[in-house]
Amino acid sequence: MTTPQLIEQIRLKKSFLCIGLDVDLTKIPAHLLETEDPIFEFNKAIIDATHDLCVSYKPNTAFYEAYGLKGWQSLERTINYINEKYPEIFTIADAKRGDIGNTSTMYAKAFLEDLNFDSVTVAPYMGKDSVEPFLAFENKHTIMLALTSNEGAFDFQTLETNGKELYKTVLETSKNWKNSQNLMYVVGATKAEYFTEIRKIVPNSFLLVPGVGAQGGSLAEVCKYGMSENVGLLINSSRGIIYVSKGTDFAEKAREEALKLQVEMNEILSKK
Amino acid sequence: MTTPQLIEQIRLKKSFLCIGLDVDLTKIPAHLLETEDPIFEFNKAIIDATHDLCVSYKPNTAFYEAYGLKGWQSLERTINYINEKYPEIFTIADAKRGDIGNTSTMYAKAFLEDLNFDSVTVAPYMGKDSVEPFLAFENKHTIMLALTSNEGAFDFQTLETNGKELYKTVLETSKNWKNSQNLMYVVGATKAEYFTEIRKIVPNSFLLVPGVGAQGGSLAEVCKYGMSENVGLLINSSRGIIYVSKGTDFAEKAREEALKLQVEMNEILSKK
Repeated sequence: MTTPQLIEQIRLKKSFLCIGLDVDLTKIPAHLLETEDPIFEFNKAIIDATHDLCVSYKPNTAFYEAYGLKGWQSLERTINYINEKYPEIFTIADAKRGDIGNTSTMYAKAFLEDLNFDSVTVAPYMGKDSVEPFLAFENKHTIMLALTSNEGAFDFQTLETNGKELYKTVLETSKNWKNSQNLMYVVGATKAEYFTEIRKIVPNSFLLVPGVGAQGGSLAEVCKYGMSENVGLLINSSRGIIYVSKGTDFAEKAREEALKLQVEMNEILSKK
Repeated sequence: MTTPQLIEQIRLKKSFLCIGLDVDLTKIPAHLLETEDPIFEFNKAIIDATHDLCVSYKPNTAFYEAYGLKGWQSLERTINYINEKYPEIFTIADAKRGDIGNTSTMYAKAFLEDLNFDSVTVAPYMGKDSVEPFLAFENKHTIMLALTSNEGAFDFQTLETNGKELYKTVLETSKNWKNSQNLMYVVGATKAEYFTEIRKIVPNSFLLVPGVGAQGGSLAEVCKYGMSENVGLLINSSRGIIYVSKGTDFAEKAREEALKLQVEMNEILSKK
């Protein structure tokens, strides 16, 4: 999917919501556990109930790898289901990968080619040659960690490096990498006051924003400081949407939560 | 495996060699491609031919994920084979993971519990709460990126942060994390001159050292500056060992390369 296509979807759906598919078998409705592939059945129901309210789904690979071969199969089924039934959805493999060049190429192939995700998240620590292999894929996107939503973000990301914080250096440096037009960034919603500074460095880039909901970030605040001319935001919510009910009505209840966020987003977009 | 057990293995085998199992189907002997699981058959042959010369095997997960479900199955078979047949081997899942707390816990379970690796590599960018979930596993080890062997290491890892380079801050900070006794670090062999400085910060920690061989690092140099009282080094070679021959003699040829390194290591150890 190209960036203009993503922007068009946001305009059409009046939503820049991304739903995180972080499926933990201990948290899903009991009746699903009797099915052959509970993770996929859970995702399928959530997707069918919410696809018109969001523009993106983001499975976090950890939750699939934790179930080994079966989990990997559920991930494959999930991405195939989205790609076949809802090709207008922007898909994100939240994998936070990154390695030396030839190895990053293997990761990029795994997620962007074989599984055919639109994008994959990567970590910046190993620098340019660990990220450029991902950027080489046409009409695919690489979403690099900049300022994350967790407490540990303050361990290294906000350290002063040559007069500015590390996450700013990461943003600035990455703009010079080959095919940097394919870069997006992860910026946590729990740090809304940082968005002004970030927009000075990357005024137009899309930012994937976790931390709204369960982690306590505010949608209004993020939009106030983080929204660009072309919206430029994908707001992720995982637990706050998918785990509202453990009953047979779980998908319906997830839709209700997604709808609340979409209504709020529509309002913000219409005021712009 | 405990650290004293690993040290004992090093003394017994007179080797601190780790062999990287980074299996690329385009690089393995053609006759294996006709088998049901070429990656596993390749690994099995390499392992059987070299297990007495090395103390560790390190599959890099990228090379397995690149083949999807089948690749994940090959990874499972490989780790199960090592754990059953050669339980004295220290196994490393080279995965370079790291995420917010509940997600890192899922990764830790995947690699340290379900697949039952002795250790897993992680990236430091997201800080303390992204790494501590890995450290919580008893008699398991977390190998964190400090100074990597690639060119991109100089993009961020060597930036000045409060008067010292970022990788030094990463090392120092991590010493204060809970269960930090379970930490080891990745330090690239291509940067041998840095080992003196690193040993001032982590005098006794084990260092996993990639970059000997294909990437150009020198074993003698690394040992000169990096060896601790308890050796404290795991020297990794991947391509330099496993891809020497594409013929039916590939395992034999791999053994010859491993033996060269083991002989050199034996010499270094005996001079200590």
